[in-house]
Amino acid sequence: MEIAKTVSELRSFLAKGTRKNYSIGFVPTMGALHEGHLSLVRASKAKCDETIVSIFVNPTQFAQTEGLEKYPRTLDKDIALLQKEDVGILFIPSKEEIYPSGAATFVTVEKITESFEGAIRPTHFRGVATVVTSLFTIVRPEVAFFGQKDLQQTAVIKRMVRDLHFPLKIEVCETMREPDGLAMSSRNQFLSAEEREESLILSKTIFYVRDVMLEGMPFSVARLRGVNLFNSLKKRAVLEYLDIINPETFQLAESFKVNEEAAVIIAARIGETRLIDNVIIAAK
Amino acid sequence: MEIAKTVSELRSFLAKGTRKNYSIGFVPTMGALHEGHLSLVRASKAKCDETIVSIFVNPTQFAQTEGLEKYPRTLDKDIALLQKEDVGILFIPSKEEIYPSGAATFVTVEKITESFEGAIRPTHFRGVATVVTSLFTIVRPEVAFFGQKDLQQTAVIKRMVRDLHFPLKIEVCETMREPDGLAMSSRNQFLSAEEREESLILSKTIFYVRDVMLEGMPFSVARLRGVNLFNSLKKRAVLEYLDIINPETFQLAESFKVNEEAAVIIAARIGETRLIDNVIIAAK
Repeated sequence: MEIAKTVSELRSFLAKGTRKNYSIGFVPTMGALHEGHLSLVRASKAKCDETIVSIFVNPTQFAQTEGLEKYPRTLDKDIALLQKEDVGILFIPSKEEIYPSGAATFVTVEKITESFEGAIRPTHFRGVATVVTSLFTIVRPEVAFFGQKDLQQTAVIKRMVRDLHFPLKIEVCETMREPDGLAMSSRNQFLSAEEREESLILSKTIFYVRDVMLEGMPFSVARLRGVNLFNSLKKRAVLEYLDIINPETFQLAESFKVNEEAAVIIAARIGETRLIDNVIIAAK
Repeated sequence: MEIAKTVSELRSFLAKGTRKNYSIGFVPTMGALHEGHLSLVRASKAKCDETIVSIFVNPTQFAQTEGLEKYPRTLDKDIALLQKEDVGILFIPSKEEIYPSGAATFVTVEKITESFEGAIRPTHFRGVATVVTSLFTIVRPEVAFFGQKDLQQTAVIKRMVRDLHFPLKIEVCETMREPDGLAMSSRNQFLSAEEREESLILSKTIFYVRDVMLEGMPFSVARLRGVNLFNSLKKRAVLEYLDIINPETFQLAESFKVNEEAAVIIAARIGETRLIDNVIIAAK
């Protein structure tokens, strides 16, 4: 596995591979890799000629209070995991490499970023869209892989790719879960044993809402039943939102329509840790 | 000359040319072509293997009151001029092609856009940065050519290219002038005969300020003398700004420093028409 620390190193590794119909798969990450990330890597390896993984804890997507410094960093372990997956190139740029001195350019996606994660974390998606734009212009992949767990992020990036005409395809891979149902996340390691146990109420709640919706319960009632279930199970968890939305626009879904999907999305704080989860429901 | 009206048509024309070290020069325009644009085309032809010109009157860089509809459109004449220059590909996308249904993504460059043109036209540079980003991801040029007449625009685009890591070079070509000194602009055709005569005060003023500065006059005095000259010559013209700035940051320049440039910039309204001009002064 080649390791590039600068844009120009990466570009010289990439230049070696240039040939007709050579496809690059790209998996951007913030490190602290788990099976969720590795499933993206495997999807890329299966689909593309070369797989590039980036590890970059992007400062612009964290608000002042959101603990950029505390975000888990496990680089040696990450490198070993990626070597085992036979990744071609790992890109681990510094902050200064991605944001050159005097950097003042931001990419914003309006509308879809105004609710849910975007409302709670006002500059988060601007940071995501900006760094992903830079990574796309640096790596120039044919396909980029993202996890469904960050569903609103995938919607923002799909909108951005369409609007700015990036010649690439976004693949959204299924959320990987622990055997008991907890969605894998780098943040799970912050949970105490007690919090870890309580964290199951996120997946329990969304699967319950999905199931009653599939049985035909009206959306508003299903949502309310979900809130009630959450509240009956919780000890210290605080529900931030539980809603049923259109996963492309993140507008509230009112009912299933032909050829439309809906998604049940949830966010909750357990102690100091904020967790999100979602499940997609295909149209009937 | 190939004419592409859609992104996919353009991409299929470009795919034909793919070969090692094949360089694409790009000249983005809003049409109503004059010798200024043609000088950019010639610079691209001299430097690159293939030259792509785009004509797109970009709605997002006009405010509601700024007369998007009145912007001059002379497509047949433009095509004839570009054919005479032996341009390889002309890209004339529709509004819907560049801004797909539901488009909500914007590229903003902070700081440098807060003064002068950016202060007077608050959403202008956001529109410019957004459309230029899209055009760069569509055309993927090695070099892109812009005119020095829109000096703040060139500074914004250079900053954006650096910040978002576009793998291309920005070439800024000298302002083309009418024999009497008026900077060429598509907007000049809006001037009445009387206004056309008065329009000379822009170039007269900036060249005067440059000359007295080169003779050693302090910046603040030179600027004031320039304002006085403008006021003594004007009939109906209204000065919007006359300043001496750092052409990279658009901060006010206080004095020449070793290895630094300064620029004298001016904007004025003559009747209904708004004109800008500038001249760069190399460090002593």
